Amino acid sequence: MTSSATPKAVSRLVEAFSRLPGIGPKTASRLTYYLLRSGQEDARILGEALLDLHLNTVLCSVCCNISEEDPCAVCADPARDRTTICVVEQPLDVLAIENTGRYKGQYHVLHGHISPMERIGPDELHMRELVQRVGREVVEIIVATNPTLEGDATAMYLSRLLEPTGVAVTRLALGLPRGGDLEYADRVTLAEALAGRRKMD
Amino acid sequence: MTSSATPKAVSRLVEAFSRLPGIGPKTASRLTYYLLRSGQEDARILGEALLDLHLNTVLCSVCCNISEEDPCAVCADPARDRTTICVVEQPLDVLAIENTGRYKGQYHVLHGHISPMERIGPDELHMRELVQRVGREVVEIIVATNPTLEGDATAMYLSRLLEPTGVAVTRLALGLPRGGDLEYADRVTLAEALAGRRKMD
Repeated sequence: MTSSATPKAVSRLVEAFSRLPGIGPKTASRLTYYLLRSGQEDARILGEALLDLHLNTVLCSVCCNISEEDPCAVCADPARDRTTICVVEQPLDVLAIENTGRYKGQYHVLHGHISPMERIGPDELHMRELVQRVGREVVEIIVATNPTLEGDATAMYLSRLLEPTGVAVTRLALGLPRGGDLEYADRVTLAEALAGRRKMD
Repeated sequence: MTSSATPKAVSRLVEAFSRLPGIGPKTASRLTYYLLRSGQEDARILGEALLDLHLNTVLCSVCCNISEEDPCAVCADPARDRTTICVVEQPLDVLAIENTGRYKGQYHVLHGHISPMERIGPDELHMRELVQRVGREVVEIIVATNPTLEGDATAMYLSRLLEPTGVAVTRLALGLPRGGDLEYADRVTLAEALAGRRKMD
């Protein structure tokens, strides 16, 4: 939301904010005017952090995650289990799994999923690096791509790609989300939960 | 959402985004990783726009709106009606009224509202500048502060402050929002709409 009376510095920032996903023109103006009100310090901190972002990050040459150093903290940590690699689509997925506190193995970040619509094939993803990592040590590869069409296609492709290596390839369980309401679960999720039912102990 | 394995440049930007209103830690990470993916250009444009924001804006010395030049485009425009001043709380309110296309007068931006809770009194707002503007030309002052307790208190204060000048002080109409559903209107709004009912022509 800008008009001809809007200063250029303001409409430029509104525009730049609007390019971010999930931020429409109204939110973009609200953020911009918030920063105008809150003083120069907040805008400076955010601005400098943005300019630093790409300068101070690299891709880990082992797991392809975004990192400060190469290899990344997870790959360099001798305490982590080297027999398991969890394959995810995005760096944020690594954070989500780390936050469960239940996984102590390695990661591999594909940076996307197979999507013919978006013209993303296996060559656009970091799959070759994954195959190269599968040595004698690795026993299991957990494919934790998203439970979507593209995630499934990627998982399927990976499982075939890894078949010759003999490593066990697993996939995250599908089912009802904890705390969810059966009544409100969608048909597909409920069908998956039924198909994946497990004996109670 | 960051962990010890997160690069500092990433967690710094996540933190800086989280300081913005309405952006929680999850959205902040999503934006940050989006910018990591989308390449250096987007981050640079946004970063530079942020650093420029305060450097290339001033307060208009007439209406106190945020502007590129002093006086601002509205105050400098000879085509605009100088008999009416619309008083608003924030610069974004000017944009909202400009976007109606129904107002051709002047503005005055208070940069806030009277709020004893937040220790904002008349002296913290640009009220003195408003009183100084009320000369022979000005016929009406439209108080367009928000329809909230604080906006009402500010309007009340302004109306008393301007009483000696003899200028007409008006306030925006209260009532049902266009397109709204009477059934879902809150009690207070409905009461205001009733009290403000107008004869149909």
